[in-house]
Amino acid sequence: MYYPEPISKLIDSFTKLPGIGPKTAVRLAFFVLNMKEDDVLDFAKALANAKRELSHCSICGHITDQDPCAICTDNTRDSSLICVVQDPKDVIAMEKMREFRGKYHVLHGAISPMDGIGPEDINVPSLINRLKDDEIQELILATNPNIEGEATAMYISKLVKPSGIKTTRIAHGLPMGGDLEYADEVTLSKALEGRREL
Amino acid sequence: MYYPEPISKLIDSFTKLPGIGPKTAVRLAFFVLNMKEDDVLDFAKALANAKRELSHCSICGHITDQDPCAICTDNTRDSSLICVVQDPKDVIAMEKMREFRGKYHVLHGAISPMDGIGPEDINVPSLINRLKDDEIQELILATNPNIEGEATAMYISKLVKPSGIKTTRIAHGLPMGGDLEYADEVTLSKALEGRREL
Repeated sequence: MYYPEPISKLIDSFTKLPGIGPKTAVRLAFFVLNMKEDDVLDFAKALANAKRELSHCSICGHITDQDPCAICTDNTRDSSLICVVQDPKDVIAMEKMREFRGKYHVLHGAISPMDGIGPEDINVPSLINRLKDDEIQELILATNPNIEGEATAMYISKLVKPSGIKTTRIAHGLPMGGDLEYADEVTLSKALEGRREL
Repeated sequence: MYYPEPISKLIDSFTKLPGIGPKTAVRLAFFVLNMKEDDVLDFAKALANAKRELSHCSICGHITDQDPCAICTDNTRDSSLICVVQDPKDVIAMEKMREFRGKYHVLHGAISPMDGIGPEDINVPSLINRLKDDEIQELILATNPNIEGEATAMYISKLVKPSGIKTTRIAHGLPMGGDLEYADEVTLSKALEGRREL
């Protein structure tokens, strides 16, 4: 035994987090020992509360501490526009932009036949259910620009087409501040394909 | 507000840890949301307990969940030999080696006049107190090989000399597996200075 038990338990817990190896876990655990007691207790409470108080919004699937979530209940937002994303973190990325004033639908994943994930395993059924509301006019498909994300966008778009609701896909192209020289071929080809008249 | 309050509190707590910036904190917080509830509660408990149950051994100053610590109360260890280190982590590094069978004294710092840290600010007085015990025959000064560590070792060695207790300093030289070509000048000069006949 190298460590007293309370600290070895803390090291074990830190090791379970992503990107934190045994050495970093030891460093963090010892740092905690030197932290103010209040800060440590706040940390412990924040952990327990985050797990206990947060759930998924029954309408859009975003993480929230109230149901429906603050975005779904916000009357100043445009209910006719729904942005479909894969992950709650994507909602946050969109919200940081402060430009989108519609609502969201979080799929919690993407269709991936290779991993055995079909449309029923992610929040597609609840999305289809939501579309029965006449108010909705446009569905922005903002899934990730990779194979699974593209497949999911394609699948949803085909599913929704008969209902007459407009489905759009966010643009692919060169990232702002990027460099043409370092862009990969697929991105460049998408950028060319999506060119617009000035 | 981008995040529901429980998660923003958790992000704040993670940000207080060393080496964890805002982006990593968000990643860790979202990872926690997807962890098993039991694991999260264990983590929260481990944090609170580490701070609550651990204290410093009244004899050697090492972190411990019982006082005196397991090392100080271990009768199979040699009480005549005390290894003086700066930090509890140093004790653990020494223990990992599984060779040292003496006891420890943790200074919790090093003398550093630049930072206003004198001998009374670290565990030097308690060390001197401990040396009154006739049993102690050798003091191994294993403070870090930098300016503060050297100064501390020198100070303690001068302080202890009149009592007739032998004081030794751990060797400086090339680290095992290292490469002469890449060694810095000071290390190389110390290695040459400390050469021994084969």
